[in-house]
Amino acid sequence: MKLANMIGDRFKERPADCIIDSHALMVRGGYIKHVANGIYSQYPILKRITAKIERIIREEMDAVDGQEVLFPVVLPGSLWEESGRFTSVGRELARFSDRNGSSLVLGMTHEEAAVQLVRDYANSYSKYPFMIYQIQTKFRDEARPRAGLIRVREFTMKDAYSFHTSREDLENYYYRVYKAYERIFERAGIPEVAAVQSDSGMMGGSISHEFMLLTPAGEDSIAICRECDYKANMEAAECIVENVNRLAMGELTLVRTPGTKTIDEVGAFLNCPVENTCKAVIYQRNRDDKYVIAFTRGDLDINETKLTNLLKEDIHAAEICEGCGLIAGYTGPYKLEGDYTVIYDRSLKNIDNLVCGANIEGYHYTGFSMSRDIGDVEYADVSKIKDNGICPNCRKPAISISRGIEVGNIFQLGTKYTKAMDMRYLDKDGQLKYPVMGCYGIGVGRLAAAVCEVRHDEYGPIWPKSIAPWQVHLCCIRVDDPGVRTAADALYDKLQEEGLEVIYDDRDVRPGVMFSDADLIGAPVRITVSPKNLARSCVEISSRDKSVNTMADIESAVPAARELLKKCT
Amino acid sequence: MKLANMIGDRFKERPADCIIDSHALMVRGGYIKHVANGIYSQYPILKRITAKIERIIREEMDAVDGQEVLFPVVLPGSLWEESGRFTSVGRELARFSDRNGSSLVLGMTHEEAAVQLVRDYANSYSKYPFMIYQIQTKFRDEARPRAGLIRVREFTMKDAYSFHTSREDLENYYYRVYKAYERIFERAGIPEVAAVQSDSGMMGGSISHEFMLLTPAGEDSIAICRECDYKANMEAAECIVENVNRLAMGELTLVRTPGTKTIDEVGAFLNCPVENTCKAVIYQRNRDDKYVIAFTRGDLDINETKLTNLLKEDIHAAEICEGCGLIAGYTGPYKLEGDYTVIYDRSLKNIDNLVCGANIEGYHYTGFSMSRDIGDVEYADVSKIKDNGICPNCRKPAISISRGIEVGNIFQLGTKYTKAMDMRYLDKDGQLKYPVMGCYGIGVGRLAAAVCEVRHDEYGPIWPKSIAPWQVHLCCIRVDDPGVRTAADALYDKLQEEGLEVIYDDRDVRPGVMFSDADLIGAPVRITVSPKNLARSCVEISSRDKSVNTMADIESAVPAARELLKKCT
Repeated sequence: MKLANMIGDRFKERPADCIIDSHALMVRGGYIKHVANGIYSQYPILKRITAKIERIIREEMDAVDGQEVLFPVVLPGSLWEESGRFTSVGRELARFSDRNGSSLVLGMTHEEAAVQLVRDYANSYSKYPFMIYQIQTKFRDEARPRAGLIRVREFTMKDAYSFHTSREDLENYYYRVYKAYERIFERAGIPEVAAVQSDSGMMGGSISHEFMLLTPAGEDSIAICRECDYKANMEAAECIVENVNRLAMGELTLVRTPGTKTIDEVGAFLNCPVENTCKAVIYQRNRDDKYVIAFTRGDLDINETKLTNLLKEDIHAAEICEGCGLIAGYTGPYKLEGDYTVIYDRSLKNIDNLVCGANIEGYHYTGFSMSRDIGDVEYADVSKIKDNGICPNCRKPAISISRGIEVGNIFQLGTKYTKAMDMRYLDKDGQLKYPVMGCYGIGVGRLAAAVCEVRHDEYGPIWPKSIAPWQVHLCCIRVDDPGVRTAADALYDKLQEEGLEVIYDDRDVRPGVMFSDADLIGAPVRITVSPKNLARSCVEISSRDKSVNTMADIESAVPAARELLKKCT
Repeated sequence: MKLANMIGDRFKERPADCIIDSHALMVRGGYIKHVANGIYSQYPILKRITAKIERIIREEMDAVDGQEVLFPVVLPGSLWEESGRFTSVGRELARFSDRNGSSLVLGMTHEEAAVQLVRDYANSYSKYPFMIYQIQTKFRDEARPRAGLIRVREFTMKDAYSFHTSREDLENYYYRVYKAYERIFERAGIPEVAAVQSDSGMMGGSISHEFMLLTPAGEDSIAICRECDYKANMEAAECIVENVNRLAMGELTLVRTPGTKTIDEVGAFLNCPVENTCKAVIYQRNRDDKYVIAFTRGDLDINETKLTNLLKEDIHAAEICEGCGLIAGYTGPYKLEGDYTVIYDRSLKNIDNLVCGANIEGYHYTGFSMSRDIGDVEYADVSKIKDNGICPNCRKPAISISRGIEVGNIFQLGTKYTKAMDMRYLDKDGQLKYPVMGCYGIGVGRLAAAVCEVRHDEYGPIWPKSIAPWQVHLCCIRVDDPGVRTAADALYDKLQEEGLEVIYDDRDVRPGVMFSDADLIGAPVRITVSPKNLARSCVEISSRDKSVNTMADIESAVPAARELLKKCT
């Protein structure tokens, strides 16, 4: 198509409200239009990219025996009541009533709809296993949409649901999809995407993986072992700590520590390493504001997701008011009295001679021992794994914390939904059983943005050829020169005849404008027809990543472009 | 794919709640799953059909220089306030609030989003004309969803929006899309779709057409002239009547007509043709329940859409209560006193010697003359055109009323939205002007259902090959016979290798079950491998429409199938 006709503006200035590069480039390049908070329209250039991504996803889902279906965007609230999620999911689930007062929701994921679709059909073991998927719009009323297409409220998602008669069959199939996901990301131009173990969150189920594209712009933190192949989302990474400064049992002593509100201040005041302190982090349950006190070792931080999963309750940072019984900065496990939920992190197990708050303003204890002074309590893993922490797999202190964008996820759901929604099948043995489910998601727009995030330079995206909006960008410099116009027009026709996807810039604009627009559009190969080169019967052929810039005889421009395209990733 | 693996049940019994055949067949054939009132999931077989329809639509939209974009499903209420439709559209517009209390709506059509997408971009005449389209989910909270996919609340729609600098340019482009629509319906297997003039309704604008598939199952009524090419939706068809029994002026006389509440009863009582009576049809405005009285000739009916458009008010059938001043059954134009909106249909113009209600219980007038007794009033066309009525184009009494399904529509919107939303461009003459718009819709699911409605027999759909879920249906009768199994498996592979889309039924079921399933799936060509025919090295090849049933040597089964496919529509 001709660039002059393409809808969308391109401009040079980085918009002030864009924190990450992919967002800025997608605004600057005329890819997206902001409609409302976390809601965008797609211009033609982005639609071409997402259509290609969708095709790759379809091919790979079909290759693992997926059957494409279509679920509704608008679902009856009653269906979500069947699974229990109508009440358990918070405000990210958009709810409204229709003209008759019936409750409706906007599907943010489609487990309920998937079960409803196949509940009657899959009534015998002989119908299993099978997988259904859709590519459909979803709406999730995120509290904080950000970073362009990375975290939005409305998005196009491929979501797939598999049904099995055994956990083994689910596991086998799960790893087939795992491999299919690796192929999808490789084909989309980001083979470096890594599968990490993840927390299953509100999806239920046990084993799950997130596919992470590592980039500093990512909003997820991932623990990666430098020594083995362990990779996990921070929320799923077990925090293993050794009692580094193993001190002998000491005497429990109340000491005055005025004005030491933070653990670092206490450590400094008492000249004690933070690894030998016990820290209190205080939350409140959303449900009733009851206090939750998590104790961990002074050098560690609490992971709120781990704590939430343990409590099975949503929580928020506590407000500590007068009369609540808690002394901010001086809360400790010893003689802590009141109706609080108390959680002890595993880092405190078998540890003696600690400094901890005394629950008296201005006082701490020294010589505190968990086993002697508190006795037998349960310990849980609620702390964050740290950089250089111990790998839960190989047990070496080789953990690196990286940031990444989650571009896909897969879950072994088990029977959570089939039980809740009473989906059963008659097994070979004549028994009625609940099928086990897996579910598998990829956000299409987020994937496009993620590719842009790791495949760009200061001038624009460098699209992998598999998802580039066009393969070839043809520039005609000095379109007012009849010879140049004729040669460029002929080349445009020829490139198209030979099956190449071409965007043709025949505008009467300066070369600088043409080239910066070409960089923002990001086609892998650019061909430039200009008076100077045409005088030598040549055209300039260059790659978007600027690694190749060469001349070709105009007669061999098409094969030369094709050759360069072959070399592009 | 193998039929045994395909999700979805097929069964024989017509569901009791299905009024039209396409609905019944789509339920019986495992095409759709009811999720909520007017909301369905699509099983894989239907998804294959709609994907093919979408591809045809895309190709034809691209062929008229359309650029595919994607608008959000969820739109900010503020955008609809800009156009005025947030308040003007009724309860079919689903409205809700997000977690921050911001008003959101579900897009039922995307004029506002289209203008918002291009408002900044298209700021100069040089950017025009252009057309953008999307294929996206829409939600419309219909009061009475019915007939399966024909009238639903959630649906996939192709909606397109064109922008122009002149009405002439819009008109030229409008007819390009008109032609593209004809190609789409022809390619989808229903070349008989007819464009009819339509009422623009809530879309605004002037000229518009609906593409109608004529079938008794349709819910729209269309006036078609048997003598010329005039075709119009009833709502848009001008009602022309001649004063058939031209009587001389008579004397206005009050006559007693006890118990004659209907116009037919009055006519019979007074021995007067209904064409010489004046009928009152009484409505109330939705806004304030004020009465609207429409008078028309006794043999005609009021068209509520025409009346609504004239009033620019929504109305409902009146409730006539004591004390409202109106006498049910005896309301007439003469000496009608009270604060009513009174409309006179054109059929009453220049007519004398009528019977009409006297506004007195049990009395009518005879000899009533509009011009003498009422004087100079305005007349409007608010009556329905009748079977054998006068064609507004050729003026012959040759109108037939048919029923049809609206499978597409096109509107010349003019500047309604660009003015309301202040979208302007700088014209060649240096003036800021409002672009003129056209919009163009096709419902994808409804199109599939409409094709099914006119292309089926008692056994199932007869899908046109262009949108059939598969081209060839291969049946293996007696799969337990190793020779048959081997031959059928080999043929399955061969058909696929040669690029044909095959659904393969290798289930161990009776031939009757196989054939009735094949009929419900509706692939144009069926190949049957059976022990009996295989003994003669033959297979049976038949067309879904039952017009062809032949034998072919198994070696030439593929070319024979391809040959038959070629002959299928």
